[in-house]
This record gives sequence, structure tokens and C-alpha cells, in this order.
Amino acid sequence: MQETTRLAGLIQERINDTLARHRTALEPLGADAEPLLDEAFGFLSGGKRFRAQFAVLGYRAIRPLELSSEVDTEFGAVLDAACALELFHAAALIHDDVIDRSDTRRGRPATHRLFAAMHQQRGWRGSAEHFGLAGAILLGDLLQSWADELMQAAGDALPDRDAAQRARRHFNRMRSEVATGQYLDVLEEQHAEFAAHEEQLERSTRVLVYKSAKYSVEAPLLIGAALAGASEQHEQALSDFGLPVGVAFQLRDDLLGVFGDEELTGKPIGDDLSEGKRTVLVTLAREKLPTTQRRIFDDMLGSELDSLQVAMLQRTIRESGAIEQIEEMITLNLDRATTALQRAQIRPDAAQLLLSLSERAARRAF
Amino acid sequence: MQETTRLAGLIQERINDTLARHRTALEPLGADAEPLLDEAFGFLSGGKRFRAQFAVLGYRAIRPLELSSEVDTEFGAVLDAACALELFHAAALIHDDVIDRSDTRRGRPATHRLFAAMHQQRGWRGSAEHFGLAGAILLGDLLQSWADELMQAAGDALPDRDAAQRARRHFNRMRSEVATGQYLDVLEEQHAEFAAHEEQLERSTRVLVYKSAKYSVEAPLLIGAALAGASEQHEQALSDFGLPVGVAFQLRDDLLGVFGDEELTGKPIGDDLSEGKRTVLVTLAREKLPTTQRRIFDDMLGSELDSLQVAMLQRTIRESGAIEQIEEMITLNLDRATTALQRAQIRPDAAQLLLSLSERAARRAF
Repeated sequence: MQETTRLAGLIQERINDTLARHRTALEPLGADAEPLLDEAFGFLSGGKRFRAQFAVLGYRAIRPLELSSEVDTEFGAVLDAACALELFHAAALIHDDVIDRSDTRRGRPATHRLFAAMHQQRGWRGSAEHFGLAGAILLGDLLQSWADELMQAAGDALPDRDAAQRARRHFNRMRSEVATGQYLDVLEEQHAEFAAHEEQLERSTRVLVYKSAKYSVEAPLLIGAALAGASEQHEQALSDFGLPVGVAFQLRDDLLGVFGDEELTGKPIGDDLSEGKRTVLVTLAREKLPTTQRRIFDDMLGSELDSLQVAMLQRTIRESGAIEQIEEMITLNLDRATTALQRAQIRPDAAQLLLSLSERAARRAF
Repeated sequence: MQETTRLAGLIQERINDTLARHRTALEPLGADAEPLLDEAFGFLSGGKRFRAQFAVLGYRAIRPLELSSEVDTEFGAVLDAACALELFHAAALIHDDVIDRSDTRRGRPATHRLFAAMHQQRGWRGSAEHFGLAGAILLGDLLQSWADELMQAAGDALPDRDAAQRARRHFNRMRSEVATGQYLDVLEEQHAEFAAHEEQLERSTRVLVYKSAKYSVEAPLLIGAALAGASEQHEQALSDFGLPVGVAFQLRDDLLGVFGDEELTGKPIGDDLSEGKRTVLVTLAREKLPTTQRRIFDDMLGSELDSLQVAMLQRTIRESGAIEQIEEMITLNLDRATTALQRAQIRPDAAQLLLSLSERAARRAF
């Protein structure tokens, strides 16, 4: 646990240094540009840092790395890759919140809401909402570039060119898949009706896998491992472990999105429901409903909901038994991951830490 | 000219190959993702390719490269860097059109309009406009990543590590500056009033420099030159040439935005005026107006305009003499660039081609 705290501190420090460097580089553009940097700092002072932790453990699965030691070139490169994932994630969330019309993130106003509020406070002309949109799109773009720079820095600092290139390939695939997965997620919400159960489950699972499971766990692990010079066999083993952990992670996220404690998650309960997200949880719940009740459920999903309606949908989902089904799926996926890890020829201390991190990711309350 | 045609063909071919590779890579995500790829192809089948051309000439300023020869590793790397700039530019324009609420680009509907139209045609539920926004944000994100991959590929293919890293640094700075410059541009439109003339001119010039001049000419040149192993002295000379050419390029763009032929520019005349862009052209024009007329001018700028009102603003700008001022500035900047080029110790054949390309960029009708 002391290690986790030290890692969290090092990550935060490196993120802050990175943003400070960009602030200096952008000084010639004048003080007007500062809100972009301020919000980058604000947004990146929070977050669970799961991706950074999985990347570091991916590295440690292959090569020893003492977290209590000095940050030398090798350690610094691993931290850069870990921070790259956090900056990329911030960029993705900032754009995501625009797309999902979310007002809150990490317990603070979403980035587009912050820029809109700035517009209102200053009494500027035109649409505050549209200015918020512009600020969020552009800050997301900046953070994507800066994430990419950190990945380059990580690769450049390490002597093994081939390893660096393989890490970049994982990073590249991750970026393509997560943006496309996000597109598929939005697309699902546009359809007037749910597909037939089996097909809908397949579609919802595909979104879950590409938009989150691979992105949250498998890709960070592979990026870290590749940087450490992992063999193809190592990478396969880490995929076999990481994908089910990622699935469990996102299934937990779906549960927290409907039943979580707002104080802990930092996101309003009911957002997923009023946005009409066709999660695996929702798909399983509605399958159990009698036809008329299912029609009402479908109509409410994806519409503006007051707290009573949210409570009603929560009760319907709870009574359907879908929560237990999801909990079982989480356990099943964690078991699968544990089995895969036992077969993996990775460093035993890292394997131990990976198990406990995946438990935390899948059993978390926020 | 034959060379230019061959280069344009090679660039298009390489862009198509890149997108085809991504289409294949994303096949596991299913047919629903295809509109993203279709629109990437559609958007990238057009454009003037100035950035690609400047990048290739930046390389040729330092090292010989026969455009009529086979595409070997070296040539391929230069083409990759050139295509990276075109993909990044597409991403920036797609996000830009959302931010500027532009409906048209390159003679076709803007990307967000295309996704919105798809939503309408399919009779999906929810807001077609918001779906258009989501599609455009995500496609822009994808193209940014893919641009970055091409820059990596360019660097990885060349033997000089140091040169590759310097090219990346130029690419990185360009990305930061253009997104921040775009933010400053949007910010200008939000102020209720113009600043005092000198200050406004300084602000408008800063936006012009960072959002366009450096991005359109100087950065592509430096990226190409760095890849070829340019010395610091070479890079300085190319900056001294490229920056004024970029300024001339954008001043022409401002003129075309108000007086251009829609058929040629592919963008509706008046967009800049109703968006309230505080260009150098507009800033110079309003300074010449008597107070009451200036007040009317300021009120109309940034509001919805019909064609009569656009014609009225055009006449006001024309009669102010601002067009002649801008034309003089364009000539002055081209002269400055020519002088800088004469002092530069670069390959003479490339210098000749750079002069004619910069003339085309600054004197173009579209």
C-alpha cells in the first residue's frame, strides 16, 4: 500500500511537471490561453489512476522495478508511459462528457461546463454553451497531443528500439479502438428500439469490450510489458489476464453508474439511464420484464428523468435479478483472470500485485 | 508541374493506403463503424495539400529527392510525414467546423453535418445535430491518432534518430500551438467589443500567426527539413522564409473568406463575417470607418447575415481600402520571404520550387 501511495505521488508529480512545461512553452501566446492549462491541471488532479498502475505493473511483470528507488532513466520512462495513459484518458473523458452531455466528472463540473461558466461569469456575448463546447474540444485535442509526446519520450529514453515500437503499436491500437468503441456506444443510443435479446447482448458486449475493457486494463498492461521487452508469449498471457479483468472493471462501472454513491463516484446517478446507455446490465434487466413493463422501461430509458423515475428504474433493475447476474459475471471474469495469471510466466511479485489491483478495480465502490 | 501532379498522386495513394489499413484493423468492431472510415476517405479526397508540399520541399531543401524515382524507404518516410500533416489538418478542420458552426467544407457538407444527415435519413431517435457533433469529435480524434502514427512511421524508417526526434519536436509544437491559437480565435469572438485598434491588431495578428501562419508553412517546412537532418542554421533560414509566407497565406485566406468565389473555395462567403472572426482584414477595415458606421459594422459582424447584409459588409470593407492594405502586406511578406531564401544555404532547385509554391499559396483564388 505504501508502494501504491508512492506511485500515485510520482504520477501526480510527473503530470504536474508535464503540464508546467507546456504552460511555459505556450507563454508566447499570452495570458488568454491560461484557462486551458488551468483546467488541464484541475482535471488531472483527480482520477483513480488504474491505467497508470496497470502500465507500471505490466512493466514489472517482465522486469524488476523498485518503486522506492530513485527515479532514474528507466523508471522515468515507465512513469512517462503511465502518465501518457492518464493524459490520454483525460482527453477521452473530456470529449466523452461533451458527447454524453454529462455535467459532472470526478466530483467537479465537466470541462465543457467549466468553460461555459467562465463565459457566463465574464458576461461575454454569444452562446456560453457553445463556448464551453469549443473549450472542451480544444483542451481534449491538446491533451491527446501531450499524451502522445509522453509516449514518445518513454520510447526514446529506453535503449530497446524494438520494444519501444511494440509499445507504441499497443498505444496506437488502443486509441483507434476506444474512439471507435465510443462511436458504437453513441450509435446504440440512437436506435429507436433494442435489438432482439441475443443480438443486443452481443452489441452491448462489443461496446463494453472496445470502449472500456481493453482500454482500461489490457492495453495499459501490454504497453508496460512491451516497454520492458516482453515476448509474444508474455503478451498473450497478459492479454488473457487483462481482458477479463477489464470486463469485470466495466461491469462494475455499469453497476456504479446506476446504483453507486454519487459522493464517491463523482458522477450523478441516473446519467447512464437518461442518456439511454444500453449497457449489459440494462440489457439483462429488460429481458426479464413482462412485455408491457418492458415497453415502459424502454420508453423511460434515454429520456429526461426526475429522481423518482430514476428510483423506479433502479427498483425495476434490482428486482429483475440483473445485479446478481452482473456480480456473478464479475466473479467469473476475475476467476478466469486468476487462472490465466497462474499460467503466465511473469515475475511472481508483480503477479501478486496484479491480483490485488484487479480485485480493487472490479470490487471498487467508486 | 508534372512533379507536382506526381506528388499529389503519391500523397493521395498513401492516404488511401493508410485509411484502408485502418479499415481492416477496425473490422472486428463490425460494420457499424464504417461511416467513420467512409467519411475519412471522403474528407481526405480533397484539399490543396499545401502542408504536404511544404514538408516535402523542406526535406528537398536539405537532401536531394527525385520525385520521379521509385518510392523507396527514404522517399516513403518523407511521404508519411507529408501525409501525417494532411491527416492532422483534416482532424483540425473537422473539429474547427464544429466550433465555427460551418456547414460546408471543401465543397461538401462539413463532417458534423454529414453525420447529422445520416441520423435524419435513418430516422433515428434523439437529436440529429448532437449525433453529428459526436461523429465529428470522434472522427477528428481518430485522424489525430492516425496522423501521429504516420509521423512515428516516418521517424522509425529513417536511420538518423536525432533527426527524427527533432522532426517530432516540430510536429509536437505545431499541434500545441494550433489548438491554442484556435482557442484564442474563438475567444476573440466572445468579447462584446473590439479592443482599441493597436491592441486589436496585435491580438488578431497573434491568432493569425499561431492558428495558421506557423502551422500552414513554417512547421511543415521544418518537419521536412529536420527529417533530412537540417542544421540549426538551416532551420533558422527556413523559419525566416516560412513564417512570412505563412502570414501571406493566411492574409489571402482572410480575403478569400470575404470576397472569394464560393465555387472555388468550397466554403460559403460570409461565414467568417457571421461567425464574427476578428481577422486583420476586418480590424483594418473598421478602423477607417466613422464612429456611427463602425458601430453598425460591429453590430452586424458576428450576427446571422442574409446575402444583402453580406454584400453590404463586403462593400464597406472594400471602400475602406483594407483590401489594398492586405494586398500590400501580402506582397511585403512575400518579399521578406524571398530575401530570406536568398540568404539561406539550401539546395538551389528546392529554393526555386519553394518560391513558386509560396507564390501559389499567397496568390491563390481558392
